Amino acid sequence: MSDLDLQVLDRRFAAAKEASRALGRATTSTKDGALEQVSRLLRERVGEIVAANGGDLDAGREQGLSTGLLDRLTLDERRIGAIADAVLEVIGLDDPVGESVSGRSLPNGVRIDQVRVPLGVVGAIYEARPNVTIDIAVLALKSGNAVVLRGGSAAERTNAVLVQLLRDALDAAGLPGDAVQTVDDFGRAGATRLMQARDFVDVLIPRGSAGLIRAVVEQAKVPVIETGAGVVHMYLDESAREDWSVELVHNAKVQRPSVCNALETLLVHRAAAERLLPPVLARLEAAGVTIHADEAVRALRPDLAPVTEEDWATEHMSLEISVGVVDSLDDALAHIRRYSTKHTESIVTNDLANAERFLDEVDAAAVMVNASTRFTDGAEFGFGAEVGISTQKLHARGPMGLPQLTSTKWLVRGAGHVRG
Amino acid sequence: MSDLDLQVLDRRFAAAKEASRALGRATTSTKDGALEQVSRLLRERVGEIVAANGGDLDAGREQGLSTGLLDRLTLDERRIGAIADAVLEVIGLDDPVGESVSGRSLPNGVRIDQVRVPLGVVGAIYEARPNVTIDIAVLALKSGNAVVLRGGSAAERTNAVLVQLLRDALDAAGLPGDAVQTVDDFGRAGATRLMQARDFVDVLIPRGSAGLIRAVVEQAKVPVIETGAGVVHMYLDESAREDWSVELVHNAKVQRPSVCNALETLLVHRAAAERLLPPVLARLEAAGVTIHADEAVRALRPDLAPVTEEDWATEHMSLEISVGVVDSLDDALAHIRRYSTKHTESIVTNDLANAERFLDEVDAAAVMVNASTRFTDGAEFGFGAEVGISTQKLHARGPMGLPQLTSTKWLVRGAGHVRG
Repeated sequence: MSDLDLQVLDRRFAAAKEASRALGRATTSTKDGALEQVSRLLRERVGEIVAANGGDLDAGREQGLSTGLLDRLTLDERRIGAIADAVLEVIGLDDPVGESVSGRSLPNGVRIDQVRVPLGVVGAIYEARPNVTIDIAVLALKSGNAVVLRGGSAAERTNAVLVQLLRDALDAAGLPGDAVQTVDDFGRAGATRLMQARDFVDVLIPRGSAGLIRAVVEQAKVPVIETGAGVVHMYLDESAREDWSVELVHNAKVQRPSVCNALETLLVHRAAAERLLPPVLARLEAAGVTIHADEAVRALRPDLAPVTEEDWATEHMSLEISVGVVDSLDDALAHIRRYSTKHTESIVTNDLANAERFLDEVDAAAVMVNASTRFTDGAEFGFGAEVGISTQKLHARGPMGLPQLTSTKWLVRGAGHVRG
Repeated sequence: MSDLDLQVLDRRFAAAKEASRALGRATTSTKDGALEQVSRLLRERVGEIVAANGGDLDAGREQGLSTGLLDRLTLDERRIGAIADAVLEVIGLDDPVGESVSGRSLPNGVRIDQVRVPLGVVGAIYEARPNVTIDIAVLALKSGNAVVLRGGSAAERTNAVLVQLLRDALDAAGLPGDAVQTVDDFGRAGATRLMQARDFVDVLIPRGSAGLIRAVVEQAKVPVIETGAGVVHMYLDESAREDWSVELVHNAKVQRPSVCNALETLLVHRAAAERLLPPVLARLEAAGVTIHADEAVRALRPDLAPVTEEDWATEHMSLEISVGVVDSLDDALAHIRRYSTKHTESIVTNDLANAERFLDEVDAAAVMVNASTRFTDGAEFGFGAEVGISTQKLHARGPMGLPQLTSTKWLVRGAGHVRG
């Protein structure tokens, strides 16, 4: 990358940082006004967006992208309308900026208040999903942040139109358009520079495949919030109810298999295997699920494909599941400890002590008893919007709402107070 | 570094991770019991500690360490007694583990609860301050974490004794001694490996010089909480009271100049310069402070040394101060934006609008009105103990107490609930 290109990128990052000051001080009504403009322009420019998207889709087909990827890449009038509606919903959410987190008067009379402030500049790195461009930008702007976007080459044409739209919406609302920047026109080199831009960017949020997230975590100098990958387990304890087991496993695996909170591995207590596996597996198979089974499961169902070491560690994101038998809760916990990506883990049991042990000992963003793993979700948790699901332990863990796009600062008010 | 050495280090990290499970589940009384043992063993082994420390001091003198560094390195019977007392104080603090952060029943009856859990394994990197070994280990253990320590070669002998003491204390309390590990015997290579150990270590906390912190931030793959460096400003606005100005500047600069919340740069509004600077500077000079002055200040006091560009960006940590005149609050804000390390900034004013603008617009962990910057401190803020002062925006900002050494997890309880 030439020095000139680096300068262009750094100027964009600096412009985002400068614009973040105006965003950070903007009132909720001003920011909501900008979101209204985003929603309006999405409907107004639907033709332009669809045309640009057509160009990306043509290029994608030429490059042989899979049907699934092409589907994610597609923005038609209906989807654009849904995105415009979703933007209006964000207007209804509480603005976290300025919220008091804590406060007290110190013994000497000094008053300290901890209030929420925007992070500043949020970097987002994602792939071939142009809806994320609007989604992440709108959440960042609502919480007073500027954004620098890297949406991937497959959606480059669509994203260019959407970025211009976001900038126009800010201008129309009296906010600086520079609060939305892209590095897409610089390809991978743009992404790399973004990941190094510690002086300008306050946090990086990668959204997408496990590979993308790993690459960002390994290369970034900017602090990262890891989202995503879920090798999610459900464990049917000896005392698990059959009806709950059947419905919970089915819902967790089948309701939406392509998302991170979908079930990937089912573990069953040996003493319950003969009772629970036949109805549970029958329900899965009726829904078209492919089952990878360990030796003990295959003793009951020799027709099933054997599970591999790789299967246990895989997030299939499709109608496939790994199934195994364990001798005890301890063995289930050990299996989960080994293969869990610390997203969501669930036990089905009627044994109170085992339920509490599972809740206590499993190290994951969400740990469940007798509930579908599909509940780990910002909307289900009542956050109204979801930035992503953090699988790390610092700053945010689990579904992230608007408050997780903020930091805090301490306001200290004295009357000439000195420290003794 | 040989493969064998790497294996030894990784085994220690893995042992810390394994031990962190027991620490995470330990009751508050068990953990407090371990802290009592630490305090007891510190008094019991004072001779051994002082002897090992003597070896470090001899080596330090041979290597020509400065008096200041040698002082920080020194542990005598009095200081060890003070450390043992401080450990007992940590017993009195609330255990953050298990604290409910939020909770609700979802519309469908599913119950969600967000509770504090330990981070897991805390890595600490610091220099030539053996008191930090006990300090950080005790805070980490109280909050249910294991620790891996890198205390620097200058304190290697002392730290080896202290690490063994911590491990013995854990054993005596029925907790795994492996929850305290060191990489000191592997020198810089040990520190490097620790910074890369993403699979084992959940967070790195560097404590020490700006250079040390920068090196950790740049090299680490493990998430870092930046602490420390403070180029701290105080701005005397046009309406600032003279008596407050004199006392606040003096206290912020002189009360303890070697710490991060001490004042480094004084800015004065042009219209108040003639009124405020003579008494403020006189009080500083009476306390032995060296003044680096800009042209406008030197117009009043031509005898002062001229301030350099480097001075504005320097955390002196000594009785030196940079002093400049600004034309307006805007100019003061621009100067602070340029040179601030986002630790603590303070305005002295009687103008309400200016006070509010300063609080609103300055981007720092602590922003103050009419108060000494020395108040940015865990003990002053009522946290009882301080892990460090975070100058970053993610996870923790400002003084960090025990809760900042925890993460959260979501406990989800259903009764066969599936997602529709």
